[in-house]
Amino acid sequence: MYNIVSASSSTMHWTALVEPRSRLKVRIEASSAVSDYCTRVARNINMEKLQYNYLFPEISTKEIEHMRKYPNAKVISLGIGDTTMPIPENVALSMANYAIGLSTPEGYKGYGFEQGNKELRKAIAKTFYKDLEIKDTEVFISDGSQSEISRLQLLLGSNVTIAVQDPSFPAYFDSGVIMGQTGGFDQESGGYGKIEYMRCGPQNNFFPDLYKTARTDVIFFCSPNNPTGHAASREQLEQLVEFAQENGSIIVFDSAYAAYISDESPRSIYEIPGARKVAIEVSSFSKMAGFTGVRLGWTVVPDELLYSNGFPVLHDFNRIICTCFNGASNVAQAGGLACLSPEGFKALHSVVDYYKENAKILVDSFTSLGLRIYGGLNAPYVWVHFPGSKSWDVFSEILEKTHIITVPGSGFGPGGEEFIRVTAFGHRDNILEASSRVTRLLS
Amino acid sequence: MYNIVSASSSTMHWTALVEPRSRLKVRIEASSAVSDYCTRVARNINMEKLQYNYLFPEISTKEIEHMRKYPNAKVISLGIGDTTMPIPENVALSMANYAIGLSTPEGYKGYGFEQGNKELRKAIAKTFYKDLEIKDTEVFISDGSQSEISRLQLLLGSNVTIAVQDPSFPAYFDSGVIMGQTGGFDQESGGYGKIEYMRCGPQNNFFPDLYKTARTDVIFFCSPNNPTGHAASREQLEQLVEFAQENGSIIVFDSAYAAYISDESPRSIYEIPGARKVAIEVSSFSKMAGFTGVRLGWTVVPDELLYSNGFPVLHDFNRIICTCFNGASNVAQAGGLACLSPEGFKALHSVVDYYKENAKILVDSFTSLGLRIYGGLNAPYVWVHFPGSKSWDVFSEILEKTHIITVPGSGFGPGGEEFIRVTAFGHRDNILEASSRVTRLLS
Repeated sequence: MYNIVSASSSTMHWTALVEPRSRLKVRIEASSAVSDYCTRVARNINMEKLQYNYLFPEISTKEIEHMRKYPNAKVISLGIGDTTMPIPENVALSMANYAIGLSTPEGYKGYGFEQGNKELRKAIAKTFYKDLEIKDTEVFISDGSQSEISRLQLLLGSNVTIAVQDPSFPAYFDSGVIMGQTGGFDQESGGYGKIEYMRCGPQNNFFPDLYKTARTDVIFFCSPNNPTGHAASREQLEQLVEFAQENGSIIVFDSAYAAYISDESPRSIYEIPGARKVAIEVSSFSKMAGFTGVRLGWTVVPDELLYSNGFPVLHDFNRIICTCFNGASNVAQAGGLACLSPEGFKALHSVVDYYKENAKILVDSFTSLGLRIYGGLNAPYVWVHFPGSKSWDVFSEILEKTHIITVPGSGFGPGGEEFIRVTAFGHRDNILEASSRVTRLLS
Repeated sequence: MYNIVSASSSTMHWTALVEPRSRLKVRIEASSAVSDYCTRVARNINMEKLQYNYLFPEISTKEIEHMRKYPNAKVISLGIGDTTMPIPENVALSMANYAIGLSTPEGYKGYGFEQGNKELRKAIAKTFYKDLEIKDTEVFISDGSQSEISRLQLLLGSNVTIAVQDPSFPAYFDSGVIMGQTGGFDQESGGYGKIEYMRCGPQNNFFPDLYKTARTDVIFFCSPNNPTGHAASREQLEQLVEFAQENGSIIVFDSAYAAYISDESPRSIYEIPGARKVAIEVSSFSKMAGFTGVRLGWTVVPDELLYSNGFPVLHDFNRIICTCFNGASNVAQAGGLACLSPEGFKALHSVVDYYKENAKILVDSFTSLGLRIYGGLNAPYVWVHFPGSKSWDVFSEILEKTHIITVPGSGFGPGGEEFIRVTAFGHRDNILEASSRVTRLLS
């Protein structure tokens, strides 16, 4: 029978039905053999390669254990990067009006275009790519970056080689594993075979040492970065684009946190000359507009981006969108359009500013303790360095002593070891309380 | 350079930027070479295998040509199966209230569970699977069947063999092609290599001749069927489950049209004893509640469904949902929950009844002409037989003479040749007008 850690015995299955965001409902069920009958379908070998627990469920489990141990503790979660502030009123009203319209003959809409509402595509092109030569026909509306990354993997197929920043958001490499682009997981290195891990840390100003990076077909690159909070500078991104050009690689640039940029760092890869020929950009309303649950994002595929045989990537992507997706919810799209109205855009930026103020409070607290921190300026994440410590140990110590949930950096790859990620999403009161607990603990 | 039909010349690219549901905006662009630079990334060989045009875009193109030719004609579309009637008011109000709530501190929600809102999962289990032993933890909320079928393909991987009904909804085999489960397209047979096509027609009461069907790992089976409108009988589904058990296959049962069943045909595969060990069920609010644009569906993966090594399929599916999806829009889910309230459920069934009345009108018209028709009773599709004729010819003749868009059966596979599909979605006036035009033409 199957063999996963602590998951089998001779007479029963241990069924770990992990429900990541369900704090109290992560259930470890022991049931006597669920079934004697097995199909003859082999388990997908790529699924077998995946490390069993996804990072956030593992943190949830630790949180639950902690709450059992300290039932009266007021736990503050600075773990998962989830928005907490209400969405702007005009955005909510636009969705509400759209929904009400669906119950009327005049307002009813069936299938929309798979690529998204044309007005929204135009508004995105105009708002985010005004002087960057991006046409609305190159903008595809998605239900968020995470789904879209998987669709991009379907587009690219199992024969491509990929590079990821280390540390990085797990969806890039996990989706690559599922697609069969990688080898198995190597416990020693903490990574999957055939993935090029581009180490990013203080030693290289959080930008890969490209001269020692092997060529791959695809380079996943997130800026401002999750988890390090680093926004790549113009010069760094110029190097990246040049590297992709030289290698004939495709950059998948994730700009989900672009709204948090405070300095002159580029907010889009297309600010870099030549990027249209080498880069796809995925982005999202999630962190910019509090749409984590509403689910809305977009992807740009320039028509100049060509496969080695000259075939436009855009054509195949359009086919993927038509066959493997069917458009984002029309109600969510109505909200997205309202976000880009002058009123909506202003309102959502005031929420972003609120989170950035949170980030500053956290940065100041950790800095005042003499710790080296990164991020926070251009991202809602603060990346705290604990040289010589294991990040899971730091996570546990902080949780044990302050009842604060963080994210151990190693969950984002071996390059995250010695770090923890602290999210600036949250209510001000909680951020201030967390700050004061941290200061008390560590000073 | 790339080589697709009518797509290249020595000096320029012809860029067919197909936007399927955009009637007027299917653009065939000629641009001088978009770019001289090609990446070194090879085009995904599976994407190359896909037949270039998806069925519905092709029909859109024909429609546009027709409208150019007859600019004053009142074209009636009985083509794409898109809902046209408003959604129930209480459903719209629930979405509106939920959206408004998102702009308040009390009502704001960030990420939901990837698997979906627990209340909705429970309501689905209770409403559709009450006596069928399906637990809410086996129900996963999706953004619709089409996306979900692709996620199921990711789950199953590229090494499985698949069977599809012929004719069938193209997403099953197209997603299989994209995953690399199939060989290339064979112009002569009209099908892809390595797919087992299960012919379903009047000769076998629209149920596959299982005694001559080769074993495959996965069997996609849609009932009530799109396009034939046939709902498999209990006896037929018992045979199917038995066949899957004998072969150790997994059935992916698509019950998106179950709400249209008028007779005693099973509405779920789990009505058949033993199905929990061999079947996944995908379903949808699209056609039941007019949610084609709202995007909401669900999938059932029973915990007794095991791979050959005993590993529960549910575990891997849960991982796919967490890694490659991030939950359906919370606003859409609020609407889904309202659909399953007594008031909502009653209201949406009155819309279903309206479409069924449409179907009856269409059935009667075609029948009165002496044509053999199928479907219509348990599905919003009427499947009309024109023995000896090519279905694209019939499509063109009907369009030319009556300005009515239908769907040529061959678009659903070679088994659809000689048939056209007529959809019963539409306003009553249009259905009556279409009926009278058809009667005049063919009588």
